[in-house]
Amino acid sequence: MGVGTVVSVDPQLVESCIMTLAQHGAYGETGVWRPTYSPAWVAAQDMIASWCRDIGMDVRQDAVGSVWGKFAGSDSGKSIVSGSHIDSQCPGGRYDGALGVIAAYIAMRTLVEQHGLPRRTLEIVSLCEEESSRYPTSNYWGSRAITGGIAPEDPERVAGLDGTTIADGMREVGLDPSRVHAARRDDLDCFIELHIEQGPLLEQAGLPVGIVTGITGPREYWVTVTGRSDHAGARPTDLRRDPMAGAAEIITGVIDTAHRMGRPAVTTVGRITADPNLGPAVPEQVAFTVDARHPDLEQRERLFTRHEVLMHQVAIRRDLEISWNITWDHQPEPCDAELVALLEESAAKQGVPHMLIPSGAGHDAQQMAKVARIAMIFVRSKDGRSHTPAEFTSVEDATAGIEVLSAALHRLAY
Amino acid sequence: MGVGTVVSVDPQLVESCIMTLAQHGAYGETGVWRPTYSPAWVAAQDMIASWCRDIGMDVRQDAVGSVWGKFAGSDSGKSIVSGSHIDSQCPGGRYDGALGVIAAYIAMRTLVEQHGLPRRTLEIVSLCEEESSRYPTSNYWGSRAITGGIAPEDPERVAGLDGTTIADGMREVGLDPSRVHAARRDDLDCFIELHIEQGPLLEQAGLPVGIVTGITGPREYWVTVTGRSDHAGARPTDLRRDPMAGAAEIITGVIDTAHRMGRPAVTTVGRITADPNLGPAVPEQVAFTVDARHPDLEQRERLFTRHEVLMHQVAIRRDLEISWNITWDHQPEPCDAELVALLEESAAKQGVPHMLIPSGAGHDAQQMAKVARIAMIFVRSKDGRSHTPAEFTSVEDATAGIEVLSAALHRLAY
Repeated sequence: MGVGTVVSVDPQLVESCIMTLAQHGAYGETGVWRPTYSPAWVAAQDMIASWCRDIGMDVRQDAVGSVWGKFAGSDSGKSIVSGSHIDSQCPGGRYDGALGVIAAYIAMRTLVEQHGLPRRTLEIVSLCEEESSRYPTSNYWGSRAITGGIAPEDPERVAGLDGTTIADGMREVGLDPSRVHAARRDDLDCFIELHIEQGPLLEQAGLPVGIVTGITGPREYWVTVTGRSDHAGARPTDLRRDPMAGAAEIITGVIDTAHRMGRPAVTTVGRITADPNLGPAVPEQVAFTVDARHPDLEQRERLFTRHEVLMHQVAIRRDLEISWNITWDHQPEPCDAELVALLEESAAKQGVPHMLIPSGAGHDAQQMAKVARIAMIFVRSKDGRSHTPAEFTSVEDATAGIEVLSAALHRLAY
Repeated sequence: MGVGTVVSVDPQLVESCIMTLAQHGAYGETGVWRPTYSPAWVAAQDMIASWCRDIGMDVRQDAVGSVWGKFAGSDSGKSIVSGSHIDSQCPGGRYDGALGVIAAYIAMRTLVEQHGLPRRTLEIVSLCEEESSRYPTSNYWGSRAITGGIAPEDPERVAGLDGTTIADGMREVGLDPSRVHAARRDDLDCFIELHIEQGPLLEQAGLPVGIVTGITGPREYWVTVTGRSDHAGARPTDLRRDPMAGAAEIITGVIDTAHRMGRPAVTTVGRITADPNLGPAVPEQVAFTVDARHPDLEQRERLFTRHEVLMHQVAIRRDLEISWNITWDHQPEPCDAELVALLEESAAKQGVPHMLIPSGAGHDAQQMAKVARIAMIFVRSKDGRSHTPAEFTSVEDATAGIEVLSAALHRLAY
């Protein structure tokens, strides 16, 4: 432990935890394939539970399968919680989600080793689901269960890519879908989540750690543009109602709108389909996603309005029909100002170079804000990559992030 | 038969032939689903053969399954041929291709009934394949066999959508794929093809018939734009290498280029794929078709050059990689000037209102130009539609077109 620092985290323990957990659902040399309620997921949750048990925590699994470990505090009061999610993209990497669970485990283990049991109750949570990689609309299943955000009919309604429901998946691992409500918690003080950045800003700044100021508010539109299918040769260009031409103009326009608004506005078109999808025919219909994000409520509305006006204008000018559904829409969530200040102070104490940074990705912390004060620590992502086996965070950077988390938990719970 | 007219075609015969032939592969109320070498295709070819036999023609099937019927002329000399293709899109309509076969049959039947046997040899051909709907690269299989355009290894190489080869399909209907060369003909004088317009120009002009001046030269590019897949929230817009943004700009640009060049230039993007194709991620790669057509050789090159320069420029400016294959590339084919004049004269004689018109679609006649003088007659398409069960040509318009064909064949063969 250096002069002035609160805790000293062992980098070898960090590396060993990352590598050991990554064996469950290992995919290729560096990837992970660990969808919610799969055998690899069960094995990973069992491993977290046994790690926690081995350091003397009280361990339980909640009604949707999230694993909780607890050091009960000597004082009463609401719990101080850290953790993240254990499921992955298919394929994903070793770090997204998993590193936040490992961080909470190592921070609490190290604190107890170096400072004894806490005054306030400390809890780790390994959330069952965040990526929506097996059930596209599961949508923060683990954290929504904790905040009471799942309706009783949802388990039978949320469908998986294989046609089964999330209720089927729960039953397969011994959970009762009718008991989802039992996962609800109203006794949490704060939730601090460590996560990889998933973007390039820390790398560009040459810093290992970011203290997150707030989580962006993403909204996804599913836009359908309808024109008239025509023969690719026989209908002159000037007589067409071409939905591909309209879609292309809209895609260019919405991306350019976010670009002109500047950071942290961001708009992505990631998914597109044409029907029919044939070389020698104008399609009848082109559909695509518009994912638009901004952490500021007012700017966010401005971004959405500009997109919607543009979409209408292009459709009207080109004599196309246009319609859209909003697939999901999450309010931006500022991090708790006191916790942000505490994290900055903790980083300074531990001698960890850091900066303030917004989160452009959605996170469980966004949901947890409904029942607790939230904060997030980002650690540097190589090349800003995530959702791929190529995602990477060095052991040094992960250790630095865990030291910041540990120092903050020490200040809150000791 | 009216004053000055050469032949009088029976509209009831026209209607009955259209309806009877459409029973083979009938799809829904007005559609046809008749891919090459399918049972519906065999039944349709058998029906054409029996129609021809019943009016006294010598009938045979060539090495790829095209049906030929012949009235041998009293004079020697090369044959005068009319016909079109018998296969359909899946689903397609009753008229595309089929109407040209019916037209040749009715024209020759009517001529012999009203004028006796011809001086020159008259032949009808019902070509086996034009739409590439079962075998995407079969590419005018019937007419290419006639012109010697099929290599000996092609039958085993041309794959169907179900994974079988066109050689498999040929064997299923009793044809020997090693004998494709035997379909070759070098004794044809001219080929006159009647076809639905597949565009809106005759309808807009209020005319039943168009005399085709030439067939456009279509080229299809399969363009691949590669960037970097990124998280939809965590990578700022200004730091992306987004292939969807690049593809959208290219699509807008190539369509606009054709629009600005004006008719008959035409460019279509009909097929698009993204990989990965997910809402919350920038794709790694977007691929799409660019189908560009112009009947004039020089203007055609100008159109292609503008497209290629634009594609390179967008890729360079956006730091994307771009590459393309040319899927197919058919030279434009002007119709034979003497035959065009003859068709105009025939239309005038029969009192059929008409105009000169370019063909923006590819046709068997384009291939047949390698071994014969070619010409085409277009008949009006309702709403300019084709390649759909909704395609429609009235019996009156079909009859008018067949009268023009009949008068032209009379002038050539009697």
